[in-house]
Amino acid sequence: MRLRNKPGAMNRIKQFPNLVIQNPEAEKGNWNNKFNNNNPIHIEIGTGRGDFIVGMAKLYPNINFIGIEKYTSVIIDAMEKVIEDNLENVIFLNKDAQKLNDYFEKNEVERVYLNFSDPWPKFRHHKRRLTHKAFIDRYKLILPDDGEIHFKTDNVSLFEFSLQSMSEENLLLQNISLDLHNSDIKDNVMTEYERKFSEKGQRIMRVEAKLR
Amino acid sequence: MRLRNKPGAMNRIKQFPNLVIQNPEAEKGNWNNKFNNNNPIHIEIGTGRGDFIVGMAKLYPNINFIGIEKYTSVIIDAMEKVIEDNLENVIFLNKDAQKLNDYFEKNEVERVYLNFSDPWPKFRHHKRRLTHKAFIDRYKLILPDDGEIHFKTDNVSLFEFSLQSMSEENLLLQNISLDLHNSDIKDNVMTEYERKFSEKGQRIMRVEAKLR
Repeated sequence: MRLRNKPGAMNRIKQFPNLVIQNPEAEKGNWNNKFNNNNPIHIEIGTGRGDFIVGMAKLYPNINFIGIEKYTSVIIDAMEKVIEDNLENVIFLNKDAQKLNDYFEKNEVERVYLNFSDPWPKFRHHKRRLTHKAFIDRYKLILPDDGEIHFKTDNVSLFEFSLQSMSEENLLLQNISLDLHNSDIKDNVMTEYERKFSEKGQRIMRVEAKLR
Repeated sequence: MRLRNKPGAMNRIKQFPNLVIQNPEAEKGNWNNKFNNNNPIHIEIGTGRGDFIVGMAKLYPNINFIGIEKYTSVIIDAMEKVIEDNLENVIFLNKDAQKLNDYFEKNEVERVYLNFSDPWPKFRHHKRRLTHKAFIDRYKLILPDDGEIHFKTDNVSLFEFSLQSMSEENLLLQNISLDLHNSDIKDNVMTEYERKFSEKGQRIMRVEAKLR
């Protein structure tokens, strides 16, 4: 992702403490209070500029969405979209996913979305991939026993790696698509990257992996 | 596959009763006797004209290969290749894979190869796909507890279906390649179809699925 420093971004974010949560450790086990309802919570790790989570939040008003994004200079754009659209079912964490288990407890998150995650092509960096088993183990600690991880990417190596990693972690692979935009899967909400890559004719791949 | 009736094929095949086994039920549990050694047995279901199995038999002289092909008019070509090359580690069954469990017993086959199997595109025919769970259950009954199924195809729908079916059957998915001919997997022996499709620029996909 191309990142530009945005002066004032952090100050702007701090004006919306109920939209971008500064101290997520304090909310662990009580996220539903933030939304004032008991709807299921879906999280997206690596929310970027927020096209996906905002699109999903509009399509599924009875789901609570939490977007996690470590880069302040992009999460600000996602935040502005939520403010503009006046959405009440999205909040953000400007945090690294490494510490996920400090923020959520078991059964608190029903689904994890991973979209166009960093492919980390070098072998010695594979453990940083969000579908590496070290991360899947973190997801298992916050999902229910039949929780799901939905993953899409345009990166062939990352997708091959992810299917294997999910299989190794004993997840059930469902609704695999090796060419999402030419499949019959409906209601696909695109990320900003997905739109760009897809316009270049790049194939998008997707899988739903379910705990069992 | 384009099939032409070959007059005399059956008569020619019958001249080599130790190469194309006419009554495989009688050999169940004793296939190693046919090869006069105790080397592991790998089978290919849908051997076609035999390029794969002949190539593999040359590359791995310490593996015994059994090619299963229901069409007499193509298995004859595979047979002639084995005769010409004087290979002693290949035999054939001119049979339908439906009855696999009448021919082999548990632990008798170490690996199953499925190459460019019929995609059976209509939903009501999916149960005929060689990676349908009904077939995987048959393979489990002849493989050891850590046996493997190696599958390759150029058909996207069939590959998506197969990954899901293998996952559902709790197999461990390994060495997935979504573009085999542009991957770093070595010693790939091509089938006659693979050569043709690949020359047309078609991507070949492959997976090794291991029992666990």
